[in-house]
Amino acid sequence: MKHIKNITFIGAGNVASHLAKAFFNEDFEIEQVYSNNIENALALADDVNSIAIDNIINLNSNSDLYILSIKDDAIENTLQQIIDKNIFIVHTSGSIPISVFEQTGFNNYGIFYPLQTFSKLKEINLLEVPFCVEANKNESLLYDLANKLSNSVHFVNSEQRKKLHLSAVFACNFTNHMYAIAEDLCLKNNVNFNILKPLIRETAEKITLNHAKDVQTGPAIRGDEKIIENHINQLDDLINYQEIYRLITQSIVQSSVDGSQAKNKKP
Amino acid sequence: MKHIKNITFIGAGNVASHLAKAFFNEDFEIEQVYSNNIENALALADDVNSIAIDNIINLNSNSDLYILSIKDDAIENTLQQIIDKNIFIVHTSGSIPISVFEQTGFNNYGIFYPLQTFSKLKEINLLEVPFCVEANKNESLLYDLANKLSNSVHFVNSEQRKKLHLSAVFACNFTNHMYAIAEDLCLKNNVNFNILKPLIRETAEKITLNHAKDVQTGPAIRGDEKIIENHINQLDDLINYQEIYRLITQSIVQSSVDGSQAKNKKP
Repeated sequence: MKHIKNITFIGAGNVASHLAKAFFNEDFEIEQVYSNNIENALALADDVNSIAIDNIINLNSNSDLYILSIKDDAIENTLQQIIDKNIFIVHTSGSIPISVFEQTGFNNYGIFYPLQTFSKLKEINLLEVPFCVEANKNESLLYDLANKLSNSVHFVNSEQRKKLHLSAVFACNFTNHMYAIAEDLCLKNNVNFNILKPLIRETAEKITLNHAKDVQTGPAIRGDEKIIENHINQLDDLINYQEIYRLITQSIVQSSVDGSQAKNKKP
Repeated sequence: MKHIKNITFIGAGNVASHLAKAFFNEDFEIEQVYSNNIENALALADDVNSIAIDNIINLNSNSDLYILSIKDDAIENTLQQIIDKNIFIVHTSGSIPISVFEQTGFNNYGIFYPLQTFSKLKEINLLEVPFCVEANKNESLLYDLANKLSNSVHFVNSEQRKKLHLSAVFACNFTNHMYAIAEDLCLKNNVNFNILKPLIRETAEKITLNHAKDVQTGPAIRGDEKIIENHINQLDDLINYQEIYRLITQSIVQSSVDGSQAKNKKP
């Protein structure tokens, strides 16, 4: 196979919809759209001039590639139900290892993982979305395919993808919780949280050109114990915020002392 | 006094420089620039067509407003050295309460606090920088003045400013440390941290239109214990990251359970 021209989607959720529409707009043929919910399959199939199916038995073998984009915990089971084990198939998950395909009997497979949060309502410019690809034998085919949609394509093996996913929890999920705490503190004290938004944007922008540890600011990195103590006292009634304040402050101080970021258990 | 036209700067650091140049560009007269380092005073005075002084004794009383913009722990001492207690004077600090002026004998004073990180090299568009103002009697004069530079001016009292500063530690300083941990994990595992940057930007953008707690994603909010356990095991050799992972995960779970963000000590 020289190029992929014809794609079937197994799944019709957020990621599948964004990808299917993007490929359709790039003149790919979308052969079939499967979802166990026929309405979802029909809605997406309609958008990309395709055929909707809701029984995996009806999956044909005509496509150059099958993109499986469903919930993590349904992946293995769905793979088992696919009869033709000779199709070229990939999944779009950040955390399921590539070994799931071998375990379910396939011999031509890979990962096609777009690292972004997709929501049904918000349009996303795929050109800027990093795609992480991995395959057992057709890696360059997947690379070229991702390159049709995005300027940021990376070969990432399952071990690295696992670490990337862990890092994303800190950089995105935990960061969002820091925003939530800040918003809650503002709310509890009749302060307008919007006042902080330009500073939040600047903090995120600053690391595009600098290492985060080099642009750390605030009382912890300055060693300003008077302000730290004052902040901890202000959180006296909110003990889990207080614990978080203490632990992260300690971690910032530690990272500035030993140069590296994390304290190692081993000697 | 109807309007402020003539300003003296006490301090010639980042904040003073950005403000002095911005006012100069808006056709304000900059009467004097004081710094205990004459070279800094001269450099800024030169930029804004002003007179440099390095002895507080030489401060004249001609200005409509005196903007004190120096390190927090030097504010009280510098105020004590100013002889004319009838000038209209403000400071630009996020954490020093307004009471410092009364304590040092002034009777016409306030706060003029731009909430942003300023660095000497990077230009900042002041129009988008929130200014927090407070005064004992001339609050509207300060409001109008800030409005000449920025579209985002807010009356914020000292108690609220203290809470804003605490919130900013979570939303900005702690967020930056989450970025630093993610970057460190990528480095330790040969993963390119740049892959995460579009997701970091999207995370910061998402909260401009939504409450942070409503757009929380990730294993903690989904209650995905299999992935949480897997992540904690991956951090086995990095105990302070592991502690942070546990505590923030617990806090996210907690905030989804009880609806409010923080567990209260009181019954």
